[in-house]
Amino acid sequence: MGGVAAGMSTAARLRRLEETATITVIEKSNHVSFANCGLPYHVGGIIEERTALLLQTPQTLTTRFNINVRTRTEATAINRDAKTLHIRDLTTGNETDLPYDALVLAPGATPIRPPIPGIERAKTLRNIEDTDAIIDAAAKAQTAIVIGGGFIGVEMAENLLHRGLKVTLIEASPQVMPPIDKEMVAQVHQTITDAGITLRLSTTVTAISENHVELHNGEQLTADLVITAIGVRPESHLAAQAGLQLGEHGGIIVDDHYRTSDPSIYAAGDAAQKKDAITGTDTLIPLANTANLQGRRIADTITGRDVPNRPVLGTAIVGILGLQVATVGWNEKRLIAAGRQYRAIHTHPTTHANYYPGANSLALKLLIDPHTDTILGAQAIGKDGADKRIDIIATAMQAGLHACDLAELELAYAPQFGSAKDPINMLGFIAENRATGVEKTIQWHELATAQHDGATLIDVRTPTEFTAGAIPGAINVPLDELRERLTEIPQNNVIVHCAVGIRGHIASRILTAAGYHVRNLDGGYRTWAAGTTTHPTPKQN
Amino acid sequence: MGGVAAGMSTAARLRRLEETATITVIEKSNHVSFANCGLPYHVGGIIEERTALLLQTPQTLTTRFNINVRTRTEATAINRDAKTLHIRDLTTGNETDLPYDALVLAPGATPIRPPIPGIERAKTLRNIEDTDAIIDAAAKAQTAIVIGGGFIGVEMAENLLHRGLKVTLIEASPQVMPPIDKEMVAQVHQTITDAGITLRLSTTVTAISENHVELHNGEQLTADLVITAIGVRPESHLAAQAGLQLGEHGGIIVDDHYRTSDPSIYAAGDAAQKKDAITGTDTLIPLANTANLQGRRIADTITGRDVPNRPVLGTAIVGILGLQVATVGWNEKRLIAAGRQYRAIHTHPTTHANYYPGANSLALKLLIDPHTDTILGAQAIGKDGADKRIDIIATAMQAGLHACDLAELELAYAPQFGSAKDPINMLGFIAENRATGVEKTIQWHELATAQHDGATLIDVRTPTEFTAGAIPGAINVPLDELRERLTEIPQNNVIVHCAVGIRGHIASRILTAAGYHVRNLDGGYRTWAAGTTTHPTPKQN
Repeated sequence: MGGVAAGMSTAARLRRLEETATITVIEKSNHVSFANCGLPYHVGGIIEERTALLLQTPQTLTTRFNINVRTRTEATAINRDAKTLHIRDLTTGNETDLPYDALVLAPGATPIRPPIPGIERAKTLRNIEDTDAIIDAAAKAQTAIVIGGGFIGVEMAENLLHRGLKVTLIEASPQVMPPIDKEMVAQVHQTITDAGITLRLSTTVTAISENHVELHNGEQLTADLVITAIGVRPESHLAAQAGLQLGEHGGIIVDDHYRTSDPSIYAAGDAAQKKDAITGTDTLIPLANTANLQGRRIADTITGRDVPNRPVLGTAIVGILGLQVATVGWNEKRLIAAGRQYRAIHTHPTTHANYYPGANSLALKLLIDPHTDTILGAQAIGKDGADKRIDIIATAMQAGLHACDLAELELAYAPQFGSAKDPINMLGFIAENRATGVEKTIQWHELATAQHDGATLIDVRTPTEFTAGAIPGAINVPLDELRERLTEIPQNNVIVHCAVGIRGHIASRILTAAGYHVRNLDGGYRTWAAGTTTHPTPKQN
Repeated sequence: MGGVAAGMSTAARLRRLEETATITVIEKSNHVSFANCGLPYHVGGIIEERTALLLQTPQTLTTRFNINVRTRTEATAINRDAKTLHIRDLTTGNETDLPYDALVLAPGATPIRPPIPGIERAKTLRNIEDTDAIIDAAAKAQTAIVIGGGFIGVEMAENLLHRGLKVTLIEASPQVMPPIDKEMVAQVHQTITDAGITLRLSTTVTAISENHVELHNGEQLTADLVITAIGVRPESHLAAQAGLQLGEHGGIIVDDHYRTSDPSIYAAGDAAQKKDAITGTDTLIPLANTANLQGRRIADTITGRDVPNRPVLGTAIVGILGLQVATVGWNEKRLIAAGRQYRAIHTHPTTHANYYPGANSLALKLLIDPHTDTILGAQAIGKDGADKRIDIIATAMQAGLHACDLAELELAYAPQFGSAKDPINMLGFIAENRATGVEKTIQWHELATAQHDGATLIDVRTPTEFTAGAIPGAINVPLDELRERLTEIPQNNVIVHCAVGIRGHIASRILTAAGYHVRNLDGGYRTWAAGTTTHPTPKQN
């Protein structure tokens, strides 16, 4: 049940493992095996041909895999005792019971629609039909409002802009993309604003009328097209109705072999609960990579292969207006909320060797358990190379490597593609320095309090850098003059910083050797500036 | 001793760990801390400014790190009893002895010059002075011959072409880039040829005269500029003269803490022997990533930190005319030569989701120990995404993940950057199918013998694909007709194949279920065609 990522992966793998099994796929929409993650890009015209989204059709699936595919067919009840699925053909209205030995629930998740007046005017994006409807509406529209700044919301905002619409992106929280921490997301906010999208953070919508969206402050924004993308909810009503156990977040609970509370019924993908790889507790992570793997694993399980349900890290990436925004594991917000101790590292390396043309800046953040050196999460943002670094860290996390092990990773280097000391190695070097006490640091959000409590802040950048923008209260002592100017600096409670952290590290070592109690501002001025920025600078037209 | 990668990493890290130590760097050439790996690209004009190659100067190193830097200074003898290094200033001729507590040998490796008449006319590329000389010579030249098709050779050929020279690349063996296996390198040969470089494989040079290069067959090729890049040899004569132990390949032997046979003397980088990560035996791997790490580790060791000498995988990448060519671990040639059992997997996925514009083909090869499932090596070639996949595999190898574990890696997916089932996951799926007997395969180089021994070869591609080029002796039964045409296929000893292996896999499952003994041609027609190509197709002008 469910003909896209998880469901279709089960069906195709099952056929390859059992040539003689009777396999039926039930799908409520008109299409199976379509490219969910490509839908926003068809709206934007980047994926030009609608047919490119249809990876398989019912006909190709029947011909190649001998699978019985029923689109526009809804499953309305499960009879667990009789082991039958009650289905209704949405075209003819015919109803029937399908017998099963194994039933796989992969219905996905439904977009959440906020309970506000006029919400029926807003469109959501889940399938091909939704895509068609949005394209039709966009063709007649000049202004669009996207409500919700998650992955889908920012992708939709970009693609509507790409179509030539005037786009406003409204987000209730103070930032887009919840998995990214505040100081990391500032660059995304700036990029969105620079592209000409009006970004309204900390803003809620109270009503939608025929041509307007009303905000919590009474403001009325014109909108020919309104799209909501505030999140999804697992489609578990059929499972609930059949008495299957649901988790606290509403997903279908499965065991370590993807079995629901009924051992003949499996669940996978966005409708199923996952195990969080950091805590081992139940969670919902609606991502295609995991859905596809789980589908395959259910086919393996049904055919007697012992494949355990893998915990989920939540490795994810979004392309936003030329930026790669990638994440894995937990973020700092979540660690703080859970009261969990952590160590944070920020670096701003270049994606490849500085001396080779085209090197872009990469913002990298690593979160570490300070007691075990376990990697808890990472974030990477840059024009290129963020995908690679997050995938390397995800691999390291799954393999149980520690943060300090990143120092030793032997990664491919040529000046076009990396650095002799890759950004990943640099994270490891910094992690080592922290773990062994070679360096003590302070985070951007701890700085104001530390200054208030009497810390002396030394900016070791050049005078030119200092003049262009400095942290309030900082004293400029350029690194290359530091050894000669030690007497200017009070011995106790010193904080040093540079642009990104490297010169600050050298300064902290010079001062430590001279007997100072010193901390280096992690991630330097750049991280501090990003973290303390309240709003992106408006676009200059 | 040695002021580039390993040596300079030691010096800088040592200063950060020991503010009061006296640190002297001896460098024979005019420059320290230059970007070796960028030299070919300065020849080509891609790195325009010569100063971009000079990452640090003696002056900046003194100012920032309080390091005593002596360029144009040669170390001529080590007095191990007195713990002094005898040095000569190449400008003044002055000689003196420098005392040491710890001596770090990081002199690098020298280009090998083949003993052929006229070799003194040929240039080699090792440092800034060599680069200057080649640029001067290239400015007056119209034709260039590069002897040697290793990493540096192909980079030089590309960059001389980029300068507008007519370039011939001569390689004694039947292929360029020895770490890459034959069927993988065919694409590189074609790319080199398509770019307009004359590629002469299996060709040796017997003499170099004023304007010509003479080949083994007597042929004379015009060459205003001749460059040799046939490999490097560790610069270990000073160590040998001091009685330090050398390895069988001529590198300086070090222990598991980078100590030579004299515990006060360390060695790192291209001059030192490394431990091969696959076998644990001594090897030489002259790569900048390892040199830089080793330099840092020696500083750690000198200051009392316990950092073991990490075995080396040989993770490497080269950019060739828009292609990424990346490798890690052992290749198939070497496994065969060592008599080691292995399982090979070839896939040809796209670098990101097919349905999103700009997806390029990626050639991926994985080598596995069939008994332990240990990953032995991998190769990746493509316009993009090869670097990422090799780095993920290198991380997996260092972490001790097995080939089947690649199936479970949770990698970041958005259609611009990957696939819901990433190429790395696909390698894992295929590895699983082999390990569990779900699929039996045959390699491209085993096919002719199998056909000779009576195997029936079924090509399950479409008639259009079949007509465009097929393997001799293959019978075309398109996959989607296979279930109906089983009677046409003899039951015993069947080999199926498609373009890259996926449809062949489905076919092999259908036939296996019907009782056939069947093998799928690993990597499909594309791998077979690449492996059996003898020469690239000449460029059509």
